Amino acid sequence: MLCVNVELKERRYPIHIGAGLLSDNSVYPLKSGDKVMIVTNPTVAQHYLSQVTDTLEKIGCTVKNVQLPDGEQYKTLDSLNLIFTALLRENYGRDATIVALGGGVIGDVAGYAAASYQRGVRFIQIPTTLLAQVDSSVGGKTAVNHELGKNMIGAFYQPCTVIIDTLTLNTLPKREVNAGLAEVIKYGAILDYPFFEWLEQHIDALVALDQEKLQQCIARCCQIKADVVARDETEKGDRALLNLGHTFGHAIETHLGYGNWLHGEAVAAGSMMAAVLSEMLGDLSAQEAARLEKLLVRANLPTVSPDTMQPEDYLPHMMRDKKVLAGKLRLILLKSLGQAYVATDTDQDKVLAAIRRCTQTD
Amino acid sequence: MLCVNVELKERRYPIHIGAGLLSDNSVYPLKSGDKVMIVTNPTVAQHYLSQVTDTLEKIGCTVKNVQLPDGEQYKTLDSLNLIFTALLRENYGRDATIVALGGGVIGDVAGYAAASYQRGVRFIQIPTTLLAQVDSSVGGKTAVNHELGKNMIGAFYQPCTVIIDTLTLNTLPKREVNAGLAEVIKYGAILDYPFFEWLEQHIDALVALDQEKLQQCIARCCQIKADVVARDETEKGDRALLNLGHTFGHAIETHLGYGNWLHGEAVAAGSMMAAVLSEMLGDLSAQEAARLEKLLVRANLPTVSPDTMQPEDYLPHMMRDKKVLAGKLRLILLKSLGQAYVATDTDQDKVLAAIRRCTQTD
Ligand SMILES: NC(=O)c1ccc[n+]([C@@H]2O[C@H](COP(=O)([O-])OP(=O)(O)OC[C@H]3O[C@@H](n4cnc5c(N)ncnc54)[C@H](O)[C@@H]3O)[C@@H](O)[C@H]2O)c1
Ligand SMILES: NC(=O)c1ccc[n+]([C@@H]2O[C@H](COP(=O)([O-])OP(=O)(O)OC[C@H]3O[C@@H](n4cnc5c(N)ncnc54)[C@H](O)[C@@H]3O)[C@@H](O)[C@H]2O)c1
Ligand SMILES: [Zn+2]
Ligand SMILES: [Zn+2]
Repeated sequence: MLCVNVELKERRYPIHIGAGLLSDNSVYPLKSGDKVMIVTNPTVAQHYLSQVTDTLEKIGCTVKNVQLPDGEQYKTLDSLNLIFTALLRENYGRDATIVALGGGVIGDVAGYAAASYQRGVRFIQIPTTLLAQVDSSVGGKTAVNHELGKNMIGAFYQPCTVIIDTLTLNTLPKREVNAGLAEVIKYGAILDYPFFEWLEQHIDALVALDQEKLQQCIARCCQIKADVVARDETEKGDRALLNLGHTFGHAIETHLGYGNWLHGEAVAAGSMMAAVLSEMLGDLSAQEAARLEKLLVRANLPTVSPDTMQPEDYLPHMMRDKKVLAGKLRLILLKSLGQAYVATDTDQDKVLAAIRRCTQTD
Repeated sequence: MLCVNVELKERRYPIHIGAGLLSDNSVYPLKSGDKVMIVTNPTVAQHYLSQVTDTLEKIGCTVKNVQLPDGEQYKTLDSLNLIFTALLRENYGRDATIVALGGGVIGDVAGYAAASYQRGVRFIQIPTTLLAQVDSSVGGKTAVNHELGKNMIGAFYQPCTVIIDTLTLNTLPKREVNAGLAEVIKYGAILDYPFFEWLEQHIDALVALDQEKLQQCIARCCQIKADVVARDETEKGDRALLNLGHTFGHAIETHLGYGNWLHGEAVAAGSMMAAVLSEMLGDLSAQEAARLEKLLVRANLPTVSPDTMQPEDYLPHMMRDKKVLAGKLRLILLKSLGQAYVATDTDQDKVLAAIRRCTQTD
């Protein structure tokens, strides 16, 4: 078992990473008599709910669960309210603990419920998608969507423990695994060249869900994100680097409509666009850009624009991004592999040219 | 103008108290170009919305407003969502400021919206009921109700400034003014004997809305609450004293159905029950209990149980109170005027006897 500590101003908490941890009662910070509400969805519940429930009942906890409908479209105030109703029906008070068992959607909604129920109850994350394991379960951002915007309503709220059981990835659709790898590759590209090299060596093992390599990989990603978050808890500066490929990716997701490309797929193509732009600006070498492309391809990820999208479609979406300040694009670009920076006021013609180079022409 | 500072671990903020402050642009921590969303309701808006809007527009702010339906029954997630929709329609970002203009309901909902919108935006309180001015606008508790429980969903979130314009009380229904005085008297009784004496001298002036006396009174109450909150920001200990009369009062509110007696009225009768119980336990003198009763009566507040409620009706409600731990009542009682304490495990027969003594028998 690997363990990464997240050090925050006010407190610290551990991320445990291993195979079979769902059944390991030593990683749960719970004791006999504790009241637990597991928040999950039917897809995840069928695989893992009884395993977690059994472990917690062996500890002596009272365990109830509430299942939200599966999907990003249910990341809403209405789903949030289902959690509150379940807690109130069981007469759970401020000493209750909420456990999020699922992907990023479940983690975000359950975390916001934990922040809000009676103004804050204990929260444990059990992320079961690769994306949630390397990204959304670290950093304390919780949220639900509003019909006028994604993740517009939420809180900064930290779990007391994150439990990552890498065996759960065995039931995750392959496409979701690969999408998670896009965020993994992103960490290497922006902040950690040795990790990027490690990925070049082990990407096939990761795609094949080699348990030991997965654990090493996830621990490294959590450490990188935890370090960034510790430096920038409420997201004023450094965290921006984590958005490599996300402004381009966001344009893709918005243009295609959410759910056509997975977030990670859009981030993969977007990261490639950022790399090509960095190359055109004279920062990244052509060879480095090619290495990134190759790594993404080996993870079965797209590196070019969707064929239903024109280069001209990007900028209008990109200019509506949250990161645009005073009408100026703020993009995350690469000085080299392992070194990202925030570029303000990049020439829009250059941006368009980079997108063109990442567009399928045949 | 009087000013009370609330000192918290992470930051401090001022409470300004004066007549005509709504139009005093020096008390608003805003500058030209700031984007402001005023949250209010039609009752308050008809009296004060244009005054606040004009002042903020003179500062150079962009000012929009959203009006929630008036009433405790609209203190819900749905009202909260109306605020988010208004903010998103106007494309307001993280640099927006939410201003709560109204009583405790508006303050609680708007405060929770400020805590949650994009995970936290600036928040200014302009309380316009006496209860909100002396109680709910200080302390950082925000909340909405759930159909299964009051104030079950919320956040601890501090405003950057509280602006109390005592002239707003001139349009407040007298019954609401008096209900606010119940909380005022409570502060004297639990923690501040000199203030209790001051109230005995000036209660008639307060009932008559004497501006100078109101300001002195509100400042003192805010100071008392701010001190308690500073010692106990997230409500683990000392804050409990603020609940004098509230467990009895809660039983009255629940039994009659919300809206029949005002909260302050129930607290007044409840405080009297706590005083009589304290006397029966040998702590408070009969003379002190009589002084409390007299003061409440001069503020036109009830000191006995509603005539549709039997003494036996209280305990079942009281045992369901949030403050009950392991089946034991926790009541706030008085050692003397100005000195309250937490009584655990008070004999239920004595509690019943005290309620009987506060029941109209004629
Ligand atoms: N809070 C943050 O910092 C942060 C960061 C990145 C993304 N997010 C959020 O995360 C969400 C995306 O998360 P996601 O990619 O995990 O999507 P998701 O939660 O929708 O999960 C994807 C699908 O996989 C299923 N699933 C989950 N675990 C499984 C398993 N072990 N076996 C089989 N099926 C499984 C889910 O039920 C779902 O159908 C978005 O809402 C995004 O906004 C949050
Ligand atoms: N956050 C806290 O710490 C805290 C503490 C105590 C109470 N509360 C909450 O406060 C709420 C009660 O607050 P309240 O007593 O102010 O009730 P309220 O907000 O419902 O106001 C009472 C009535 O007076 C009207 N009104 C307000 N100001 C007016 C004015 N100047 N002129 C004319 N009419 C006016 C309102 O529209 C309403 O109809 C409850 O929801 C309670 O839970 C919160
Ligand atoms: Zn992402
Ligand atoms: Zn009260």
